[in-house]
Amino acid sequence: MIFTKKQLVRFEHCDAAGIVFYPRYYAMLNSLVEDWFRESLNFPFETMHNTSGIPTVDIKTQFKSPAKMGQVLTKSLWVEKLGGSSCTYGYSFKVDERIVLQGEGTVVFVSISGNEIKPKDWGDLRDKMEVYFKK
Amino acid sequence: MIFTKKQLVRFEHCDAAGIVFYPRYYAMLNSLVEDWFRESLNFPFETMHNTSGIPTVDIKTQFKSPAKMGQVLTKSLWVEKLGGSSCTYGYSFKVDERIVLQGEGTVVFVSISGNEIKPKDWGDLRDKMEVYFKK
Amino acid sequence: MIFTKKQLVRFEHCDAAGIVFYPRYYAMLNSLVEDWFRESLNFPFETMHNTSGIPTVDIKTQFKSPAKMGQVLTKSLWVEKLGGSSCTYGYSFKVDERIVLQGEGTVVFVSISGNEIKPKDWGDLRDKMEVYFKK
Amino acid sequence: MIFTKKQLVRFEHCDAAGIVFYPRYYAMLNSLVEDWFRESLNFPFETMHNTSGIPTVDIKTQFKSPAKMGQVLTKSLWVEKLGGSSCTYGYSFKVDERIVLQGEGTVVFVSISGNEIKPKDWGDLRDKMEVYFKK
Repeated sequence: MIFTKKQLVRFEHCDAAGIVFYPRYYAMLNSLVEDWFRESLNFPFETMHNTSGIPTVDIKTQFKSPAKMGQVLTKSLWVEKLGGSSCTYGYSFKVDERIVLQGEGTVVFVSISGNEIKPKDWGDLRDKMEVYFKK
Repeated sequence: MIFTKKQLVRFEHCDAAGIVFYPRYYAMLNSLVEDWFRESLNFPFETMHNTSGIPTVDIKTQFKSPAKMGQVLTKSLWVEKLGGSSCTYGYSFKVDERIVLQGEGTVVFVSISGNEIKPKDWGDLRDKMEVYFKK
Repeated sequence: MIFTKKQLVRFEHCDAAGIVFYPRYYAMLNSLVEDWFRESLNFPFETMHNTSGIPTVDIKTQFKSPAKMGQVLTKSLWVEKLGGSSCTYGYSFKVDERIVLQGEGTVVFVSISGNEIKPKDWGDLRDKMEVYFKK
Repeated sequence: MIFTKKQLVRFEHCDAAGIVFYPRYYAMLNSLVEDWFRESLNFPFETMHNTSGIPTVDIKTQFKSPAKMGQVLTKSLWVEKLGGSSCTYGYSFKVDERIVLQGEGTVVFVSISGNEIKPKDWGDLRDKMEVYFKK
Protein backbone atom coordinates (compact mmCIF):
# COMPACT_ATOMS: atom_id res chain seq x y z
CA MET A 1 0.00 0.00 0.00
CA ILE A 2 0.98 3.58 -0.59
CA PHE A 3 -0.10 6.42 1.71
CA THR A 4 -1.31 9.36 -0.37
CA LYS A 5 -2.40 12.93 0.40
CA LYS A 6 -3.17 15.93 -1.77
CA GLN A 7 -1.87 19.43 -1.08
CA LEU A 8 -2.59 22.68 -2.88
CA VAL A 9 0.45 24.78 -3.80
CA ARG A 10 -0.30 28.07 -2.08
CA PHE A 11 0.99 31.61 -2.30
CA GLU A 12 3.03 31.07 0.87
CA HIS A 13 4.97 28.16 -0.69
CA CYS A 14 6.17 30.08 -3.73
CA ASP A 15 9.24 32.15 -4.40
CA ALA A 16 9.84 35.18 -6.58
CA ALA A 17 9.56 32.95 -9.67
CA GLY A 18 6.07 31.77 -8.65
CA ILE A 19 7.24 28.19 -8.07
CA VAL A 20 7.62 26.28 -4.82
CA PHE A 21 10.69 27.34 -2.81
CA TYR A 22 12.38 23.98 -2.13
CA PRO A 23 12.66 24.26 1.70
CA ARG A 24 8.83 24.43 1.78
CA TYR A 25 8.72 20.90 0.33
CA TYR A 26 10.28 19.56 3.54
CA ALA A 27 7.47 21.00 5.65
CA MET A 28 5.05 19.35 3.18
CA LEU A 29 6.97 16.08 3.53
CA ASN A 30 6.91 16.35 7.31
CA SER A 31 3.12 16.82 7.10
CA LEU A 32 2.90 13.67 5.01
CA VAL A 33 4.78 11.63 7.63
CA GLU A 34 2.67 13.30 10.36
CA ASP A 35 -0.56 12.38 8.52
CA TRP A 36 0.66 8.80 8.05
CA PHE A 37 1.28 8.44 11.77
CA ARG A 38 -2.06 10.08 12.62
CA GLU A 39 -4.31 8.45 10.07
CA SER A 40 -2.74 5.07 9.30
CA LEU A 41 -0.61 4.17 12.32
CA ASN A 42 -3.06 5.66 14.83
CA PHE A 43 -0.24 7.44 16.66
CA PRO A 44 -0.67 11.24 16.29
CA PHE A 45 2.35 13.44 16.95
CA GLU A 46 0.69 15.23 19.87
CA THR A 47 0.48 11.86 21.64
CA MET A 48 3.91 10.70 20.54
CA HIS A 49 5.79 13.81 21.57
CA ASN A 50 5.13 13.55 25.27
CA THR A 51 7.62 10.73 25.70
CA SER A 52 8.90 9.80 22.25
CA GLY A 53 9.90 11.20 18.89
CA ILE A 54 10.92 10.21 15.37
CA PRO A 55 13.92 12.38 14.53
CA THR A 56 14.91 12.33 10.88
CA VAL A 57 18.48 11.06 10.43
CA ASP A 58 18.80 11.02 6.65
CA ILE A 59 17.03 12.52 3.64
CA LYS A 60 17.73 12.42 -0.08
CA THR A 61 15.68 14.30 -2.63
CA GLN A 62 15.78 14.64 -6.40
CA PHE A 63 13.87 17.67 -7.65
CA LYS A 64 12.63 16.77 -11.12
CA SER A 65 10.36 19.65 -12.18
CA PRO A 66 8.81 22.76 -10.67
CA ALA A 67 5.35 23.08 -9.13
CA LYS A 68 3.41 26.32 -9.50
CA MET A 69 0.92 28.22 -7.38
CA GLY A 70 -2.56 26.71 -7.72
CA GLN A 71 -1.36 23.24 -8.77
CA VAL A 72 -2.28 20.28 -6.59
CA LEU A 73 0.51 17.99 -5.41
CA THR A 74 -0.18 14.32 -4.86
CA LYS A 75 2.18 13.26 -2.11
CA SER A 76 2.94 9.53 -1.77
CA LEU A 77 4.82 7.64 0.93
CA TRP A 78 5.75 3.96 1.30
CA VAL A 79 8.10 1.87 3.41
CA GLU A 80 11.43 0.74 1.97
CA LYS A 81 13.24 -0.67 5.01
CA LEU A 82 12.11 -1.37 8.54
CA GLY A 83 14.68 -1.89 11.31
CA GLY A 84 14.14 -2.48 15.01
CA SER A 85 13.78 1.25 15.67
CA SER A 86 14.31 2.78 12.23
CA CYS A 87 12.19 3.23 9.15
CA THR A 88 13.33 4.22 5.68
CA TYR A 89 10.47 5.53 3.59
CA GLY A 90 10.30 6.44 -0.07
CA TYR A 91 8.29 9.43 -1.22
CA SER A 92 7.23 11.23 -4.35
CA PHE A 93 5.31 14.42 -5.09
CA LYS A 94 3.51 14.62 -8.41
CA VAL A 95 1.35 17.08 -10.33
CA ASP A 96 -0.97 14.78 -12.27
CA GLU A 97 1.43 12.17 -13.67
CA ARG A 98 4.47 14.47 -13.71
CA ILE A 99 7.05 13.83 -10.98
CA VAL A 100 7.98 16.99 -9.11
CA LEU A 101 10.32 15.34 -6.65
CA GLN A 102 11.17 11.94 -5.23
CA GLY A 103 13.44 10.65 -2.53
CA GLU A 104 14.02 8.64 0.57
CA GLY A 105 14.06 9.51 4.27
CA THR A 106 14.99 7.65 7.43
CA VAL A 107 13.54 8.25 10.89
CA VAL A 108 14.48 6.60 14.17
CA PHE A 109 11.96 5.92 16.91
CA VAL A 110 13.31 7.21 20.24
CA SER A 111 12.18 7.57 23.83
CA ILE A 112 12.82 10.98 25.37
CA SER A 113 13.23 11.33 29.09
CA GLY A 114 14.68 14.68 30.15
CA ASN A 115 17.91 14.94 28.17
CA GLU A 116 18.19 11.21 27.57
CA ILE A 117 17.26 10.10 24.07
CA LYS A 118 17.36 6.34 23.29
CA PRO A 119 16.26 4.31 20.26
CA LYS A 120 13.28 2.18 21.08
CA ASP A 121 11.49 -0.68 19.37
CA TRP A 122 8.57 0.11 17.06
CA GLY A 123 6.46 -2.38 19.04
CA ASP A 124 2.81 -2.42 17.97
CA LEU A 125 3.50 0.11 15.22
CA ARG A 126 5.53 -2.39 13.21
CA ASP A 127 2.56 -4.41 11.95
CA LYS A 128 0.79 -1.28 10.78
CA MET A 129 3.93 0.01 9.06
CA GLU A 130 4.61 -3.26 7.22
CA VAL A 131 1.40 -2.83 5.26
CA TYR A 132 3.10 0.07 3.47
CA PHE A 133 5.98 -1.92 2.00
CA LYS A 134 5.98 -1.27 -1.73
CA LYS A 135 5.94 -4.58 -3.51
CA MET B 1 -22.50 35.06 4.99
CA ILE B 2 -19.30 34.02 6.66
CA PHE B 3 -16.50 32.22 4.81
CA THR B 4 -15.25 29.31 6.89
CA LYS B 5 -12.39 26.81 6.57
CA LYS B 6 -10.94 24.22 8.93
CA GLN B 7 -7.21 23.76 9.53
CA LEU B 8 -5.40 21.16 11.61
CA VAL B 9 -2.75 22.50 13.99
CA ARG B 10 0.34 20.64 12.87
CA PHE B 11 3.77 19.96 14.31
CA GLU B 12 5.25 22.64 12.04
CA HIS B 13 3.00 25.36 13.53
CA CYS B 14 4.02 24.78 17.15
CA ASP B 15 6.75 26.22 19.30
CA ALA B 16 8.75 24.75 22.16
CA ALA B 17 5.66 24.94 24.38
CA GLY B 18 3.64 22.78 21.94
CA ILE B 19 1.28 25.65 21.06
CA VAL B 20 0.99 27.61 17.82
CA PHE B 21 3.82 30.13 17.33
CA TYR B 22 1.91 33.34 16.59
CA PRO B 23 3.61 34.28 13.26
CA ARG B 24 2.26 30.98 11.87
CA TYR B 25 -1.27 32.29 12.37
CA TYR B 26 -0.64 34.95 9.72
CA ALA B 27 0.23 32.33 7.11
CA MET B 28 -3.02 30.56 8.13
CA LEU B 29 -4.89 33.86 7.79
CA ASN B 30 -3.34 34.50 4.40
CA SER B 31 -4.51 31.02 3.33
CA LEU B 32 -8.01 31.91 4.46
CA VAL B 33 -8.04 35.06 2.32
CA GLU B 34 -6.50 33.06 -0.54
CA ASP B 35 -9.21 30.38 -0.26
CA TRP B 36 -11.91 33.05 -0.15
CA PHE B 37 -10.64 34.56 -3.41
CA ARG B 38 -10.27 31.14 -5.01
CA GLU B 39 -13.46 29.47 -3.86
CA SER B 40 -15.97 32.28 -3.33
CA LEU B 41 -14.79 35.18 -5.49
CA ASN B 42 -13.62 32.94 -8.32
CA PHE B 43 -10.33 34.85 -8.60
CA PRO B 44 -7.42 32.57 -7.59
CA PHE B 45 -4.13 34.17 -6.60
CA GLU B 46 -2.22 32.54 -9.48
CA THR B 47 -4.52 34.38 -11.90
CA MET B 48 -4.53 37.61 -9.92
CA HIS B 49 -0.79 37.89 -9.48
CA ASN B 50 0.06 38.26 -13.15
CA THR B 51 -1.16 41.82 -13.25
CA SER B 52 -2.70 42.61 -9.87
CA GLY B 53 -2.34 42.04 -6.16
CA ILE B 54 -4.04 42.63 -2.83
CA PRO B 55 -1.31 43.91 -0.51
CA THR B 56 -2.28 44.00 3.15
CA VAL B 57 -2.09 47.53 4.57
CA ASP B 58 -3.36 47.01 8.10
CA ILE B 59 -3.88 44.13 10.52
CA LYS B 60 -5.03 43.98 14.12
CA THR B 61 -5.16 40.76 16.13
CA GLN B 62 -6.20 39.86 19.65
CA PHE B 63 -4.85 36.50 20.75
CA LYS B 64 -7.34 35.13 23.28
CA SER B 65 -6.20 31.58 24.04
CA PRO B 66 -3.62 29.06 22.79
CA ALA B 67 -4.18 26.32 20.21
CA LYS B 68 -2.34 23.02 20.56
CA MET B 69 -0.96 20.46 18.15
CA GLY B 70 -3.72 18.16 16.91
CA GLN B 71 -6.55 20.64 17.52
CA VAL B 72 -8.64 21.80 14.57
CA LEU B 73 -9.04 25.52 13.99
CA THR B 74 -12.24 26.85 12.46
CA LYS B 75 -11.20 29.97 10.58
CA SER B 76 -13.92 32.51 9.73
CA LEU B 77 -13.81 35.60 7.54
CA TRP B 78 -16.41 38.26 6.74
CA VAL B 79 -16.49 41.73 5.20
CA GLU B 80 -16.65 44.78 7.46
CA LYS B 81 -16.03 47.65 5.03
CA LEU B 82 -15.80 47.81 1.29
CA GLY B 83 -14.21 50.84 -0.41
CA GLY B 84 -13.58 51.49 -4.09
CA SER B 85 -10.38 49.51 -4.02
CA SER B 86 -10.09 48.47 -0.37
CA CYS B 87 -11.67 45.77 1.76
CA THR B 88 -11.61 45.49 5.54
CA TYR B 89 -12.40 41.98 6.69
CA GLY B 90 -13.02 40.59 10.15
CA TYR B 91 -11.69 37.19 11.13
CA SER B 92 -11.73 34.74 13.99
CA PHE B 93 -10.04 31.40 14.65
CA LYS B 94 -11.79 29.05 17.08
CA VAL B 95 -11.25 25.60 18.55
CA ASP B 96 -14.81 24.35 18.99
CA GLU B 97 -16.57 27.36 20.56
CA ARG B 98 -13.44 28.79 22.18
CA ILE B 99 -11.98 31.88 20.50
CA VAL B 100 -8.26 31.51 19.82
CA LEU B 101 -7.86 34.84 18.07
CA GLN B 102 -9.88 37.53 16.34
CA GLY B 103 -9.10 40.67 14.43
CA GLU B 104 -9.44 42.81 11.38
CA GLY B 105 -7.37 43.21 8.24
CA THR B 106 -7.43 45.60 5.29
CA VAL B 107 -6.26 44.83 1.77
CA VAL B 108 -6.09 47.12 -1.24
CA PHE B 109 -6.69 45.94 -4.77
CA VAL B 110 -3.87 47.15 -7.04
CA SER B 111 -2.71 46.81 -10.59
CA ILE B 112 0.97 46.01 -11.04
CA SER B 113 2.78 47.03 -14.20
CA GLY B 114 6.55 46.79 -13.88
CA ASN B 115 7.37 48.98 -10.88
CA GLU B 116 4.11 50.91 -11.05
CA ILE B 117 1.53 49.91 -8.45
CA LYS B 118 -1.87 51.65 -8.52
CA PRO B 119 -5.13 51.08 -6.61
CA LYS B 120 -7.83 49.79 -8.89
CA ASP B 121 -11.56 49.30 -8.61
CA TRP B 122 -12.89 45.94 -7.39
CA GLY B 123 -15.09 45.82 -10.49
CA ASP B 124 -16.97 42.52 -10.84
CA LEU B 125 -15.56 41.27 -7.55
CA ARG B 126 -17.60 43.78 -5.53
CA ASP B 127 -20.92 41.98 -5.89
CA LYS B 128 -19.41 38.70 -4.79
CA MET B 129 -17.69 40.35 -1.82
CA GLU B 130 -20.83 42.12 -0.62
CA VAL B 131 -22.44 38.77 0.10
CA TYR B 132 -19.97 38.40 2.97
CA PHE B 133 -21.05 41.51 4.89
CA LYS B 134 -21.83 40.37 8.43
CA LYS B 135 -25.29 41.56 9.32
CA MET C 1 16.41 54.33 24.28
CA ILE C 2 15.37 52.39 21.23
CA PHE C 3 16.47 48.81 20.58
CA THR C 4 17.59 48.43 16.97
CA LYS C 5 18.67 45.52 14.79
CA LYS C 6 19.34 45.18 11.07
CA GLN C 7 18.02 42.32 8.92
CA LEU C 8 18.65 41.54 5.28
CA VAL C 9 15.57 40.80 3.19
CA ARG C 10 16.33 37.34 1.85
CA PHE C 11 15.00 35.15 -0.92
CA GLU C 12 13.04 33.10 1.64
CA HIS C 13 11.10 36.17 2.83
CA CYS C 14 9.79 37.16 -0.59
CA ASP C 15 6.66 36.26 -2.49
CA ALA C 16 5.97 35.89 -6.18
CA ALA C 17 6.19 39.68 -6.58
CA GLY C 18 9.73 39.75 -5.12
CA ILE C 19 8.63 41.66 -2.02
CA VAL C 20 8.36 40.47 1.58
CA PHE C 21 5.33 38.23 2.20
CA TYR C 22 3.72 39.92 5.21
CA PRO C 23 3.53 36.87 7.55
CA ARG C 24 7.35 36.75 7.36
CA TYR C 25 7.46 40.17 9.05
CA TYR C 26 6.02 38.63 12.21
CA ALA C 27 8.87 36.12 12.45
CA MET C 28 11.23 39.09 11.99
CA LEU C 29 9.35 40.97 14.73
CA ASN C 30 9.53 37.97 17.04
CA SER C 31 13.30 37.85 16.43
CA LEU C 32 13.50 41.51 17.40
CA VAL C 33 11.72 40.86 20.72
CA GLU C 34 13.88 37.75 21.21
CA ASP C 35 17.06 39.76 20.61
CA TRP C 36 15.87 42.47 23.01
CA PHE C 37 15.36 39.91 25.76
CA ARG C 38 18.70 38.23 25.00
CA GLU C 39 20.90 41.25 24.49
CA SER C 40 19.36 44.04 26.55
CA LEU C 41 17.31 42.34 29.26
CA ASN C 42 19.81 39.51 29.74
CA PHE C 43 17.03 36.91 29.69
CA PRO C 44 17.40 34.70 26.60
CA PHE C 45 14.36 32.72 25.45
CA GLU C 46 16.07 29.34 26.00
CA THR C 47 16.40 30.25 29.71
CA MET C 48 12.93 31.80 29.94
CA HIS C 49 11.06 28.95 28.33
CA ASN C 50 11.83 26.35 30.97
CA THR C 51 9.38 27.87 33.44
CA SER C 52 8.02 31.05 31.88
CA GLY C 53 6.91 32.63 28.64
CA ILE C 54 5.80 35.91 27.08
CA PRO C 55 2.75 35.07 24.96
CA THR C 56 1.65 37.84 22.63
CA VAL C 57 -1.91 38.97 23.36
CA ASP C 58 -2.33 41.83 20.92
CA ILE C 59 -0.66 43.12 17.76
CA LYS C 60 -1.47 45.97 15.39
CA THR C 61 0.49 46.66 12.22
CA GLN C 62 0.29 49.26 9.49
CA PHE C 63 2.13 48.23 6.35
CA LYS C 64 3.29 51.45 4.67
CA SER C 65 5.50 50.38 1.77
CA PRO C 66 7.05 47.18 0.39
CA ALA C 67 10.56 45.86 1.08
CA LYS C 68 12.43 44.02 -1.65
CA MET C 69 14.95 41.22 -1.74
CA GLY C 70 18.43 42.51 -0.95
CA GLN C 71 17.25 45.55 0.99
CA VAL C 72 18.26 45.91 4.64
CA LEU C 73 15.54 46.48 7.21
CA THR C 74 16.30 48.53 10.30
CA LYS C 75 14.02 47.12 12.98
CA SER C 76 13.31 49.32 16.02
CA LEU C 77 11.52 48.52 19.28
CA TRP C 78 10.64 50.65 22.31
CA VAL C 79 8.39 50.43 25.35
CA GLU C 80 5.03 52.22 25.34
CA LYS C 81 3.32 50.83 28.45
CA LEU C 82 4.57 48.67 31.27
CA GLY C 83 2.07 46.90 33.56
CA GLY C 84 2.71 44.54 36.44
CA SER C 85 3.06 41.60 34.09
CA SER C 86 2.39 43.13 30.68
CA CYS C 87 4.43 45.18 28.23
CA THR C 88 3.19 47.11 25.22
CA TYR C 89 5.98 47.86 22.78
CA GLY C 90 6.04 50.00 19.67
CA TYR C 91 7.98 48.91 16.61
CA SER C 92 8.93 50.09 13.16
CA PHE C 93 10.79 48.55 10.23
CA LYS C 94 12.51 50.94 7.82
CA VAL C 95 14.58 50.77 4.66
CA ASP C 96 16.88 53.77 5.05
CA GLU C 97 14.46 56.52 6.15
CA ARG C 98 11.39 55.00 4.49
CA ILE C 99 8.90 53.34 6.83
CA VAL C 100 7.98 49.83 5.72
CA LEU C 101 5.73 49.06 8.65
CA GLN C 102 4.95 50.22 12.16
CA GLY C 103 2.77 49.02 14.98
CA GLU C 104 2.31 48.01 18.54
CA GLY C 105 2.36 44.67 20.34
CA THR C 106 1.54 43.51 23.85
CA VAL C 107 3.07 40.54 25.65
CA VAL C 108 2.26 39.15 29.08
CA PHE C 109 4.85 37.57 31.34
CA VAL C 110 3.58 34.21 32.61
CA SER C 111 4.80 31.30 34.67
CA ILE C 112 4.17 27.88 33.17
CA SER C 113 3.85 24.84 35.38
CA GLY C 114 2.40 21.82 33.60
CA ASN C 115 -0.89 23.07 32.17
CA GLU C 116 -1.15 26.00 34.58
CA ILE C 117 -0.30 29.38 33.08
CA LYS C 118 -0.39 32.44 35.36
CA PRO C 119 0.66 36.08 34.88
CA LYS C 120 3.69 36.91 36.95
CA ASP C 121 5.47 40.11 37.93
CA TRP C 122 8.31 41.35 35.72
CA GLY C 123 10.49 41.53 38.84
CA ASP C 124 14.12 42.41 38.05
CA LEU C 125 13.33 42.80 34.36
CA ARG C 126 11.26 45.93 34.96
CA ASP C 127 14.22 48.24 35.57
CA LYS C 128 15.93 47.08 32.39
CA MET C 129 12.73 47.49 30.37
CA GLU C 130 12.03 51.00 31.62
CA VAL C 131 15.19 52.22 29.92
CA TYR C 132 13.40 51.64 26.61
CA PHE C 133 10.49 54.01 27.23
CA LYS C 134 10.38 56.38 24.27
CA LYS C 135 10.42 59.93 25.56
CA MET D 1 38.64 27.67 0.67
CA ILE D 2 35.49 27.08 2.63
CA PHE D 3 32.67 29.63 2.83
CA THR D 4 31.50 29.97 6.43
CA LYS D 5 28.67 31.83 8.18
CA LYS D 6 27.31 31.76 11.72
CA GLN D 7 23.61 31.57 12.56
CA LEU D 8 21.89 31.70 15.93
CA VAL D 9 19.28 29.00 16.56
CA ARG D 10 16.18 31.02 17.31
CA PHE D 11 12.80 30.35 18.86
CA GLU D 12 11.23 30.26 15.38
CA HIS D 13 13.48 27.38 14.27
CA CYS D 14 12.57 25.05 17.11
CA ASP D 15 9.88 22.44 17.54
CA ALA D 16 7.97 21.23 20.56
CA ALA D 17 11.12 19.48 21.80
CA GLY D 18 13.10 22.76 21.77
CA ILE D 19 15.40 21.56 18.96
CA VAL D 20 15.58 22.71 15.35
CA PHE D 21 12.71 21.37 13.22
CA TYR D 22 14.58 19.83 10.28
CA PRO D 23 12.76 21.68 7.42
CA ARG D 24 14.10 24.93 8.93
CA TYR D 25 17.65 23.72 8.18
CA TYR D 26 16.90 23.94 4.46
CA ALA D 27 16.00 27.63 4.72
CA MET D 28 19.29 28.07 6.63
CA LEU D 29 21.11 26.17 3.88
CA ASN D 30 19.46 28.28 1.19
CA SER D 31 20.63 31.39 3.08
CA LEU D 32 24.17 29.99 3.06
CA VAL D 33 24.10 29.52 -0.72
CA GLU D 34 22.50 32.97 -1.06
CA ASP D 35 25.25 34.55 1.06
CA TRP D 36 27.92 32.74 -0.95
CA PHE D 37 26.55 34.16 -4.21
CA ARG D 38 26.16 37.63 -2.66
CA GLU D 39 29.43 37.91 -0.75
CA SER D 40 31.91 35.69 -2.58
CA LEU D 41 30.64 35.38 -6.14
CA ASN D 42 29.40 38.98 -6.29
CA PHE D 43 26.09 37.88 -7.81
CA PRO D 44 23.24 38.60 -5.36
CA PHE D 45 19.96 36.74 -5.82
CA GLU D 46 17.99 39.96 -6.44
CA THR D 47 20.19 40.59 -9.49
CA MET D 48 20.22 36.97 -10.61
CA HIS D 49 16.49 36.40 -10.43
CA ASN D 50 15.55 38.90 -13.09
CA THR D 51 16.73 36.64 -15.89
CA SER D 52 18.34 33.60 -14.29
CA GLY D 53 18.09 31.19 -11.40
CA ILE D 54 19.86 28.31 -9.70
CA PRO D 55 17.18 25.68 -9.04
CA THR D 56 18.24 22.89 -6.72
CA VAL D 57 18.05 19.50 -8.42
CA ASP D 58 19.42 17.21 -5.74
CA ILE D 59 20.04 17.30 -1.99
CA LYS D 60 21.29 14.72 0.48
CA THR D 61 21.52 15.36 4.20
CA GLN D 62 22.66 13.32 7.18
CA PHE D 63 21.37 14.70 10.48
CA LYS D 64 23.95 13.74 13.09
CA SER D 65 22.89 15.49 16.29
CA PRO D 66 20.31 18.06 17.42
CA ALA D 67 20.83 21.82 17.75
CA LYS D 68 19.02 23.71 20.51
CA MET D 69 17.60 27.19 20.88
CA GLY D 70 20.38 29.67 21.72
CA GLN D 71 23.19 27.62 20.17
CA VAL D 72 25.20 29.09 17.31
CA LEU D 73 25.53 27.07 14.12
CA THR D 74 28.68 27.38 12.03
CA LYS D 75 27.54 26.72 8.48
CA SER D 76 30.20 25.71 5.93
CA LEU D 77 29.99 25.30 2.16
CA TRP D 78 32.54 24.17 -0.43
CA VAL D 79 32.53 23.05 -4.04
CA GLU D 80 32.72 19.33 -4.84
CA LYS D 81 32.00 19.24 -8.58
CA LEU D 82 31.69 21.95 -11.18
CA GLY D 83 30.02 21.20 -14.52
CA GLY D 84 29.29 23.53 -17.42
CA SER D 85 26.09 24.76 -15.80
CA SER D 86 25.91 22.69 -12.61
CA CYS D 87 27.58 22.89 -9.21
CA THR D 88 27.63 20.23 -6.51
CA TYR D 89 28.49 21.71 -3.14
CA GLY D 90 29.21 20.03 0.16
CA TYR D 91 27.95 21.54 3.41
CA SER D 92 28.10 21.01 7.13
CA PHE D 93 26.47 22.70 10.12
CA LYS D 94 28.31 22.45 13.44
CA VAL D 95 27.86 23.62 17.02
CA ASP D 96 31.45 24.17 18.13
CA GLU D 97 33.20 21.03 16.86
CA ARG D 98 30.12 18.81 16.96
CA ILE D 99 28.55 18.03 13.56
CA VAL D 100 24.83 18.73 13.50
CA LEU D 101 24.33 17.84 9.87
CA GLN D 102 26.26 17.38 6.65
CA GLY D 103 25.40 16.73 3.06
CA GLU D 104 25.64 17.60 -0.57
CA GLY D 105 23.48 19.67 -2.90
CA THR D 106 23.44 20.30 -6.63
CA VAL D 107 22.19 23.43 -8.37
CA VAL D 108 21.91 24.17 -12.07
CA PHE D 109 22.43 27.62 -13.53
CA VAL D 110 19.53 28.47 -15.87
CA SER D 111 18.28 31.36 -17.92
CA ILE D 112 14.60 32.18 -17.53
CA SER D 113 12.69 33.87 -20.31
CA GLY D 114 8.94 33.73 -19.85
CA ASN D 115 8.16 30.02 -19.47
CA GLU D 116 11.41 28.93 -21.12
CA ILE D 117 14.06 27.65 -18.73
CA LYS D 118 17.45 26.60 -20.19
CA PRO D 119 20.75 25.59 -18.58
CA LYS D 120 23.41 28.20 -19.19
CA ASP D 121 27.16 28.35 -18.73
CA TRP D 122 28.56 29.67 -15.44
CA GLY D 123 30.70 32.10 -17.45
CA ASP D 124 32.60 34.55 -15.25
CA LEU D 125 31.28 32.90 -12.09
CA ARG D 126 33.33 29.75 -12.69
CA ASP D 127 36.68 31.25 -11.68
CA LYS D 128 35.23 32.58 -8.43
CA MET D 129 33.57 29.24 -7.67
CA GLU D 130 36.73 27.19 -8.30
CA VAL D 131 38.40 28.89 -5.35
CA TYR D 132 36.01 26.95 -3.11
CA PHE D 133 37.10 23.48 -4.20
CA LYS D 134 37.97 21.57 -1.03
CA LYS D 135 41.46 20.16 -1.42
